[in-house]
Amino acid sequence: MVQISLSRRLRRTPFSDGVEAAGVKGYTVYNRMLLPTVFESVEADYRHLKTHVQVWDVSCERQVELRGPDAARLMQMLTPRDLRGMLPGQCFYVPIVNETGGMLNDPVAVKLSEDRWWISIADSDLLLWVKGIANGYRLDVLVDEPDVSPLAVQGPKADELMARVFGDRVRDIRFFRFDKFAFEGRELAVARSGYSKQGGFEIYVEGSDIGMPLWNALFAAGEDLQVRAGCPNLIERIEGGLLSYGNDMTDDNTPHECGLGKFCNTHTAIGCIGRDALLRVAKEGPVQQIRPIAIDGDSVPPCDRPWPVVAGGKQVGQVTSAVWSPDFQTNVSIGMVKLSHWDPGTQIEVETPDGMRSATVQEKFWI
Amino acid sequence: MVQISLSRRLRRTPFSDGVEAAGVKGYTVYNRMLLPTVFESVEADYRHLKTHVQVWDVSCERQVELRGPDAARLMQMLTPRDLRGMLPGQCFYVPIVNETGGMLNDPVAVKLSEDRWWISIADSDLLLWVKGIANGYRLDVLVDEPDVSPLAVQGPKADELMARVFGDRVRDIRFFRFDKFAFEGRELAVARSGYSKQGGFEIYVEGSDIGMPLWNALFAAGEDLQVRAGCPNLIERIEGGLLSYGNDMTDDNTPHECGLGKFCNTHTAIGCIGRDALLRVAKEGPVQQIRPIAIDGDSVPPCDRPWPVVAGGKQVGQVTSAVWSPDFQTNVSIGMVKLSHWDPGTQIEVETPDGMRSATVQEKFWI
Repeated sequence: MVQISLSRRLRRTPFSDGVEAAGVKGYTVYNRMLLPTVFESVEADYRHLKTHVQVWDVSCERQVELRGPDAARLMQMLTPRDLRGMLPGQCFYVPIVNETGGMLNDPVAVKLSEDRWWISIADSDLLLWVKGIANGYRLDVLVDEPDVSPLAVQGPKADELMARVFGDRVRDIRFFRFDKFAFEGRELAVARSGYSKQGGFEIYVEGSDIGMPLWNALFAAGEDLQVRAGCPNLIERIEGGLLSYGNDMTDDNTPHECGLGKFCNTHTAIGCIGRDALLRVAKEGPVQQIRPIAIDGDSVPPCDRPWPVVAGGKQVGQVTSAVWSPDFQTNVSIGMVKLSHWDPGTQIEVETPDGMRSATVQEKFWI
Repeated sequence: MVQISLSRRLRRTPFSDGVEAAGVKGYTVYNRMLLPTVFESVEADYRHLKTHVQVWDVSCERQVELRGPDAARLMQMLTPRDLRGMLPGQCFYVPIVNETGGMLNDPVAVKLSEDRWWISIADSDLLLWVKGIANGYRLDVLVDEPDVSPLAVQGPKADELMARVFGDRVRDIRFFRFDKFAFEGRELAVARSGYSKQGGFEIYVEGSDIGMPLWNALFAAGEDLQVRAGCPNLIERIEGGLLSYGNDMTDDNTPHECGLGKFCNTHTAIGCIGRDALLRVAKEGPVQQIRPIAIDGDSVPPCDRPWPVVAGGKQVGQVTSAVWSPDFQTNVSIGMVKLSHWDPGTQIEVETPDGMRSATVQEKFWI
């Protein structure tokens, strides 16, 4: 196994001290920031996540803040999702596309007010795209990365733990909504969201200085709930069909290929860069699409590069995330498959580093 | 030590198979791509680099390609360095700045022709900034990341090894110039450049398919030169004062703070975004600047976060890269120091995780 070499460039987070004290065993780098990947083992972390409650350092979901009279206009230029009906207090999952409709990011947009937005980003320097667009179009808006680091609380006992720290009102937060809650005299946005299917919250921790106090408060309050440090779990996220930008899609892909056509209101999202290209895609339909794929045989090796999907001797797609699922007793995976082979039940082959495996396109993810 | 968790998102390179076969022990992530950091040990790698010749997988220096009638105009919009005198075949080190003069990257610009440029980038998604600017200003230019992966050949025997593979004409390449050389029927740009002070070349490998053949050809030709796989070396690059974007500078810093004022022709670089802000900086001068700092005592721990620089009980700067130098028998480091304390010989203190250390601002780097 290869070590990660630490340097300032791979930014630490307000919670890194807590993560290290909890015995983190693996890191990845996400938005040039450390993101834990393993504590006990990927399987043990998975079982715990599905049973108890975990606190996740997801500071790497950096925020791009838009502030000023043109903030809403700029936000709509970035995405084909129609934002006109969006209210302050709402979070929207928004594909962000370039001029040809290629995905640049798949963040959550957080509407704080008409003229103040956060974009909680996946792994690409979206800040640079947004600043370039704001500059080029001479928009009246400030674009920055504020000192905001999300901390996720995920798992079936998340409501109970959060209520102990923030009060019972957190239970009333609806899915993909947020409200403000006090912590040590600070007002923090708390959303019902997160990168798992086990339920939970994301706390937008504004001000690095209260990072460890909040971390410690959550652990102190949750001892009897068996709270522990966790992180986005590879097995759980593939079972649940949670896509990962950079893994399952890149700027080569349109939202439609990623199954995100439902978030593209290309007819009404006026001003969106890439709208012309996406109108064409919406009309013709994608020629390849994200699919859940069950791969036969025992545990596959780590998927650190695209694995070709083959049928009749020809490549018809690729698998980009894959892992053994203890709960479903198969290798669960996410792939991009051509139109000719994307119907549920289609038998295909996947070329793993360990050799060819038979596999089947699934109707749905495994949640 | 914490492991790196591999996934497609941390992109492999055309040379990763060679790097792994050579026994890579450490990785960092740079432009969302794997960059080796250690083979034998940082110290053994350092000694070998200064004595023999190494082949470095620096594919992570991704290229941003500008192509079209507005390519040169766009390139000048990106940087305060005056590019009017630049000829095809030249490489220029260019600070790239945003509208307030903050550094977005410090790449090498490669002028292939008047309407075709590569920007060989440091660690930030410069592609997104450039695409945003091109889109916003409606420039007639294509901006993409081509399939080009630099392979560096560095060390005192670099000329000899390169001549064996590409012919004696490589010896004639002048510093920061490039020429085209044939390899397996492909014409590759080869520049005399690289991220060490030991001399050498960077081969812009166009087409991933010839990556391993070229890697193997270099190793086959250099056996008696003791060629081996290497990587940018932490000790050698700090001794030589080679800055690292994300470590020693960020978008908080102006080029002047980074000692790159000589690459800012703010009066003549007409069209440069950020020129107004930099004219102000050029007039007033920076209030902090990059300095070499010798830190007393034995070997410092890894510098994975900024270490405060303190004098008279107040913070007057920070150290962002530091390591023990066997050749100079001191801890060599790079810091950003305020005007009041940046004169050579100034005694300061550095707050390392192991405690306070006395230190001295140096006149020059250690090369």
